Order: sequence, then C-alpha cells, then structure tokens
Amino acid sequence: MRPALYITFVFTTFLSLAMAVPAILDYADGSDAWTVFAVSGISVFCVSVIGAIALRDTVPPFTPRFGFLLTTLLWAMSAVVGAMPFWLSDLEMTTAGAYFEAMSGLTTSGATVLSGLDLMSRGYLLWRAMLHSLGGIGIIAISLFLFPFLRIGGMQVFRTESSDRSDKALPRIASVTRALCFIYFGLTILCAIVYAALGMSVFDAICHAMATISTGGFSTHDRSFGFFQDPRILWAAVVFMIMGSLPFVLYVDLLVRGRFGFWRDWQVRTFFGGIALFSIFLAVWLTRVRDIELSEALTQATFNVVSIVSTTGFASDDYAIWGPFAFGAFYILTFIGGCSGSTSGGLKVYRFIIVFQALRRAFTRLVYPNAVRPLRFGDKIIDQDVYDSVIIYFVAFFLIYGIAILAMALAGQDFVTALTGVQTAFTNVGPGLGETIGPAGNFAPLGEFELWLLSFVMLLGRLEIMTVIILFTPVFWRD
Amino acid sequence: MRPALYITFVFTTFLSLAMAVPAILDYADGSDAWTVFAVSGISVFCVSVIGAIALRDTVPPFTPRFGFLLTTLLWAMSAVVGAMPFWLSDLEMTTAGAYFEAMSGLTTSGATVLSGLDLMSRGYLLWRAMLHSLGGIGIIAISLFLFPFLRIGGMQVFRTESSDRSDKALPRIASVTRALCFIYFGLTILCAIVYAALGMSVFDAICHAMATISTGGFSTHDRSFGFFQDPRILWAAVVFMIMGSLPFVLYVDLLVRGRFGFWRDWQVRTFFGGIALFSIFLAVWLTRVRDIELSEALTQATFNVVSIVSTTGFASDDYAIWGPFAFGAFYILTFIGGCSGSTSGGLKVYRFIIVFQALRRAFTRLVYPNAVRPLRFGDKIIDQDVYDSVIIYFVAFFLIYGIAILAMALAGQDFVTALTGVQTAFTNVGPGLGETIGPAGNFAPLGEFELWLLSFVMLLGRLEIMTVIILFTPVFWRD
Repeated sequence: MRPALYITFVFTTFLSLAMAVPAILDYADGSDAWTVFAVSGISVFCVSVIGAIALRDTVPPFTPRFGFLLTTLLWAMSAVVGAMPFWLSDLEMTTAGAYFEAMSGLTTSGATVLSGLDLMSRGYLLWRAMLHSLGGIGIIAISLFLFPFLRIGGMQVFRTESSDRSDKALPRIASVTRALCFIYFGLTILCAIVYAALGMSVFDAICHAMATISTGGFSTHDRSFGFFQDPRILWAAVVFMIMGSLPFVLYVDLLVRGRFGFWRDWQVRTFFGGIALFSIFLAVWLTRVRDIELSEALTQATFNVVSIVSTTGFASDDYAIWGPFAFGAFYILTFIGGCSGSTSGGLKVYRFIIVFQALRRAFTRLVYPNAVRPLRFGDKIIDQDVYDSVIIYFVAFFLIYGIAILAMALAGQDFVTALTGVQTAFTNVGPGLGETIGPAGNFAPLGEFELWLLSFVMLLGRLEIMTVIILFTPVFWRD
Repeated sequence: MRPALYITFVFTTFLSLAMAVPAILDYADGSDAWTVFAVSGISVFCVSVIGAIALRDTVPPFTPRFGFLLTTLLWAMSAVVGAMPFWLSDLEMTTAGAYFEAMSGLTTSGATVLSGLDLMSRGYLLWRAMLHSLGGIGIIAISLFLFPFLRIGGMQVFRTESSDRSDKALPRIASVTRALCFIYFGLTILCAIVYAALGMSVFDAICHAMATISTGGFSTHDRSFGFFQDPRILWAAVVFMIMGSLPFVLYVDLLVRGRFGFWRDWQVRTFFGGIALFSIFLAVWLTRVRDIELSEALTQATFNVVSIVSTTGFASDDYAIWGPFAFGAFYILTFIGGCSGSTSGGLKVYRFIIVFQALRRAFTRLVYPNAVRPLRFGDKIIDQDVYDSVIIYFVAFFLIYGIAILAMALAGQDFVTALTGVQTAFTNVGPGLGETIGPAGNFAPLGEFELWLLSFVMLLGRLEIMTVIILFTPVFWRD
C-alpha cells in the first residue's frame, strides 16, 4: 500500500504543477477562475510533496497485487485531484458532479455534467482537455507496460519485447516511453494544426485535438462538433479519432524500427473493415430515410460511427432523432470499441476476433469432439490462459452491466437512461441515448448516487474491469 | 436428413391426431371453428402418414449431427403443423402471425399476437394450451436424453445413468420416460384440480394448468391472471410455476427411487434463495413506492418475479407501470431463467453457478497464476469441456442478442420494443416491456419480418442456441 501511495503522490505532484497552465490562461483572460486553479494547485502540491517525502523510502514490489493496487489508486486519486478545481469553482457543482467530470476526463470518456461551455472561463475547458490528454497517454502506457503482465482480459497476448521486464529491458522501456510520448503528443499537435488550418480558433483546435487523440470527447461547445459547419473539420476528426484508436505499439514500431505494420495487423484490418461497412450502410440508410444527399449522409454517418466506435463521443448531430435503426445501431456499436493499446475503450476489437474464433471452434467441436484447433491472433497462437481471460472478460462485462443497470433503476432512472448511461460509462464513450443523457443532453439531471456509480463504472471500464474488482475480493487481501 | 424427416413425420402424425380434441370441443360448443381443426388435422395426417411410410426404411444414425438436425427439424416442423389451425381460422392472422403463435406455444414462450381471447372459440384456446404442454414435455425429454450427449451449453454435466446410451440403458430410458410422463401430466392434472378448487372454471383450470407446468404463459383471458382476483389462485400459480422450473430428473429420482434430492441440489437452492430474496425486496419496495399493503405487495411481487424467472410470463398486473426500478428489475430477471432439465428457458441457474465460480477462479489466478482450483457443481467436478460450453453459451447468447436487436431496429421497431422483444423471445418468457409488447400489450402490431425473426429467436432460445446455429455453419455440412 505505501509504495503505491508514494508513486501516486509523485504523480499528483506533477498534476498540481499542470494546474499552472489553466491558471495562467485564466489570469491572462482576466478571469477570476485563475484563483481556483492556483488554490487547487498549491494545496495539492503541498499535500503531495509532504506525502511523497513521508513515504520516500518504500521500495515498490514487482508483484501483480501491487500492479492492481497502484493502477486503481493512481486513477482514483488523480480524479480527486482533477476534480478539485471544479469543486472549488463557481460552476455550482456537487462533489459527485466534480468527481464525475474529472473521472470522465481521465478515463477519456467525455460524459459531462456541464453545460454553457461556450461562456465558461477557458481555464476549465483547457483543464478538461488536459485531463483527457493525460488520461490517454496514461492508459496507453499501462496497456503496454503493465496489463500484459497483470494478465488482464487477455492483454497477455500483447507481451512483446517492448513489455519485457528483465534487466536488459529497462533501457528499452525508457526508449519506448520516449517514442510513445513523442508520437502521442506529436499526433496531438498535428491534429491541432490541422483543426486550426481548417478554421477552428487556436484554443478550440488545441482543446479538441487533446480530446480527439485521447478519444475523450469533451468539447468547448455545447453543440460539440455540431458547432463547426465545415465537413472538412468532421473528416479531419474522423482521421484523428481513428489514429487514437489504433494500437500505439505499431506507431512505436514505425518510429523506432521503420516497420509499417498497420496493414498486416488483424485487429487494425478488422477495425477498418467494420467502420467502412457500417458507415456506408448507415449513410445509404440515411439517404433513404431522411432524404439528405449521399455526401452529407456519408459525412454524418462516418463521423458518428467513428466517434462511437473509437469511444470518443463527439456528436455532430443529435443522432437519437435519426430514427429507430440509428438508435439501435448506436446502442450496439457502443459496446465494440477500438484496438488494444490505444486510448479507446469498449470491449475492443481483438477480443471480438478471439471470441469469434472461439465460437467457430466450439461449433467444430460439437461435430468433431476431439478436434484440435488452436486459436490464432495474427501469427501468434492463443493459449488457454489468454482464451480464458478474454472470455471471462466478456462474462464479467455483462454481469457488471446488469448489476449497474439495476442500481441505476433503483435510483429511479428511466430504462433507457439506466441502460445507456451505464453502457456509455462502462465503454468510456461519453453520451448515452434517450432524452436525458443523449448526444443533445448531459448528465447534470442525474442524482449524486448515479454520478458516483457512473464514475466507478467509468473507472472499471477504463482499467479493464478486473484490475479494480479484484481489490474487492478476499483473495487479493489474503496473505 | 431422411431419418430425421421420418421421425418428424411420425411426430406430426400424432400432432394431427391431437387436433381432434379442440375439434370435438368446438363441435360440442356449437362453434364453426371445429371445421378448421378437422381440415388441419386430416390434411396434416395424410401428408405425415404418406411421408412416414415413404421414409420408413431409414435407420437413424446415432451421431451428434443427427441429433442437431432432428431436434431443430422437429420443433420447426411441429410449429408449421401447430400453426395450421391459426392460419386457416377466421382470426385474420398472417402466415407469420400464425407461425409465431404456434412457435410461441411449442417453445413455451407465451408471447401472443392474439387478443379478444375471452370471446374466442374455445378450441383455439385449448390448442394453444396443448402446444405449451407438448412443447414442455418435449424439451424436458430432449434435455434429459439428448442434450447431455450433444454437449450443448454445458448440459453434459447432467449426464447420468438415466441418460446413459449403452444397450443396458434402453429399458431404463423407457422406464424413465414413463415416469417423466406420469410426473409431468400428473402435475398438470394436480394443478388443474387446485385451480378449479380455488374457483376457476374447469376449462380455464385445464388450460392454465397446461400453461403453468410448461412455464408457457398463454392465458384464456386478455388480462391473464389479472382476471382472477383471488390471491390464493396467484399463490397456487406461484407454486406450480416453480414446480415446472425445477429439474425433472429430481422428480424421477423421487418417484423411482424414493430419493428426495431437492434440498441437496445447488441449483434448486440457489433458485429458491434468489426468488425469495428478490420477491421480498421488490415487495418492500412496492409498499414504499406504491402505497399498498405488505401482503398484497408480497403477492404481486412474488407472482410476477416467479412468472418471469420461471419464464412463464403470466401477468397479474401491468408491472411496466410500477415505476423505473420494477422496469429495470424485470428486464434483468428475464435473462436468468429456471433450472436445467425443466420446462423453463433463459440462461438458467446452473450456468450462473458455474460462471460465478469461473469468475472467482479467474480472480484467484490473477493473484496466484498457478493456482489449481477445480470448478464444482454439487459433488461433480466441472471439466474443461463443460466450462468451455457454458462460457461460450453466454458469449453466443449476447452476440446473437445484439445482432437480433439490430435487425429489429432496422425493421423500424423502437428501442425498448427491439431490446425486450428479442430478449423475451430468446429466453422464452413471453411478454416484453414497453408500450407495444409489455404485459398489457401483445405482439400483433409487429410486422411480418419481426414475427418471423422472433419465431426464429424463440426456437434458438428453446433449443439452447447451438443446436440451431450449427446447422448454418459449413462444418456441419462437411463430409
């Protein structure tokens, strides 16, 4: 526990320093909100530094238990720190609302309790985008270096040299981390430049770039991307949302070894194929049902499909009013998610690939009980351990989904809000469906209990469920 | 294929003879509808006998393939025969509607496209009840004698001496079958006597008894059990719905060997515990929210919880208007289902027992990667094959659920109708939720495509998914 707290304090120290950026922005803007960031930053800094110094002599043990504890603590405490400015602000947020907003940022969900964004002090908007950006790089790092060893949800299939933990590997980890940061922030800057070139204000471009590459979804406008009428901006967002949903290890391979592995990757190919198929189908359907031109339909369909599947959650239109098929389709798409080792959430494409193979094998074995048929992922053979983890992940997902729906219903939320609210939090997408929390609404009407619950569900979804749930099992705390 | 057709024709011959019963009833009632049953019965009889004679020299092979083909063909063709009277009737039913009604009967779902039941020729009402009753005994026999060998959804865990297939076993199969029929129809008669003693008309008592023990849910009144104001009738229904959801192998044990195994059975204990817990919780909630007395609340809560969990689908009240919690709770409860080897549908209690153990083992293995921890079901150890089948069953369930929701949405159904319509068909419960197909509505407003789709989904749910889906895989048809 102590070493995990130590690392958390070190991290929150950096987080408190990061508050200087929105403070400076608000000060320059002449907004009083700069004091909120200053007070938050200074108090968090003091507590964190004292905590870190008090615990500095602890040596972190390299055990799975420590990994689970550290990861959960890191995200949960960072959300507390991230919530501070919201809580101290004049935005009239409850404790639950402030924590929800920060957790939504750090888990790159993008569900919000705030409205009136267009008139808000820019510091708050920037802070939300920064939480997205930090949460995004954080989850990539964890998925690359930690999850494969924690054997979470089948992530062990991505154990590569770059996630090797032997002594020799340390310099490699350092170089991979450098490459990762370079790529992640490089893509963010590139995205911002493209947005700005296409007509966004510099501030909008920066905030939206951070929310795009992290597949977060916080916007600086209540209407989200509906604010920007230029279809070129929507297409630019499509490209960068997809880039945020690809396995970042492939970018590292490209940068470090000059190896372009995107087309050879099963997961990426399936991801692209699915998006293309669904966008075109939905676009054709839109032209028939809503009487709009194909090019316009294709833009709208692709943008919203990519926004949901990449688990970003930007909206260009209230697709809840597109009719029953779109409603059902977006409900189902929300489960899917992007690729492993990216900033996206959801069940993730590689798990579907493995599950479909497992199903095919199950059918084969019903006819040929002794058939030996190894499951494959690219050129790797899926062993029993990976298979078990993936399948159990699906089961755990739907069990927790069911329990959380019951809890939401018990709190008095209507069926669609309960169902899609839990779903969108669990998959880190952002908007739900229905009148309250749909793409045109927000989470402010929900009660405190629901906001705490959904914050927890977002955390579960972001850290691949097991990482968090295991802390509540007796076996974890047994000696 | 030919031997499967032969057995199917033999079966439909008996089904055509059974049509004599509603024909005689309608004739005695002075209703013209008797001609419908006479025409259906005679034409089906002729076709079936000719078919059976033409194919009589075929020898059924005892292979899994044959089992899958036979089971699916038996249910699909029986539904065609069962639909004949509806199709020929003056009830103005489409082909899809008639097939849906018959499939709903044979799969003991109880979803209906008919209304005005109270004024209908009694022959139709009796025929619906008879389909339930035949479908109920059919699924018990298949679950006991066939599914354990087809290794469907983990049913192989129920391989016992009574499902042994060696030569010695044949006399035993015959005696078990006799015992089974005795118990099943004995319980139905007992149920009818109790209903009649509590004030139902004899006809109502017989029809509702057939629909209760088969956990079907067709009523002879539009208001279902809401028609009967006596709470004692509701409690009698609770008892008999539960009896229909228990593993029938335990009754056989009781009758043949005098062994009372209900309390020692994990599945039964979990089932009872869950029902008690949920009914009491819901009753207390009802007293608080809807201001009714505890005894009345307990009756209503228990009746409707048992009706859903046993997958019967009788309604005593429109629980859709009980408020958001009841709505959400009934949605989740619909998935669960009763015990294996009973007439009930759903995911079934034993699968949840195995899945919870698998989850616990998964957590243990995250901390102790080499932990050996066998899964248990009662005094049996769950082997890898059973575990795989159960887990894959869950995954297949939710994948097909998702695809069917998309299809319903594409057909233009609203979100709640699409979601709960597929769910209630898949779990063989009966009523869905929402304005259209809720406990106070019916499936008549749905289009033909939706009715065909839901008929197929009911068949999938009834035959444990894999039995049907495998017929659509290339591996099944490969030599």
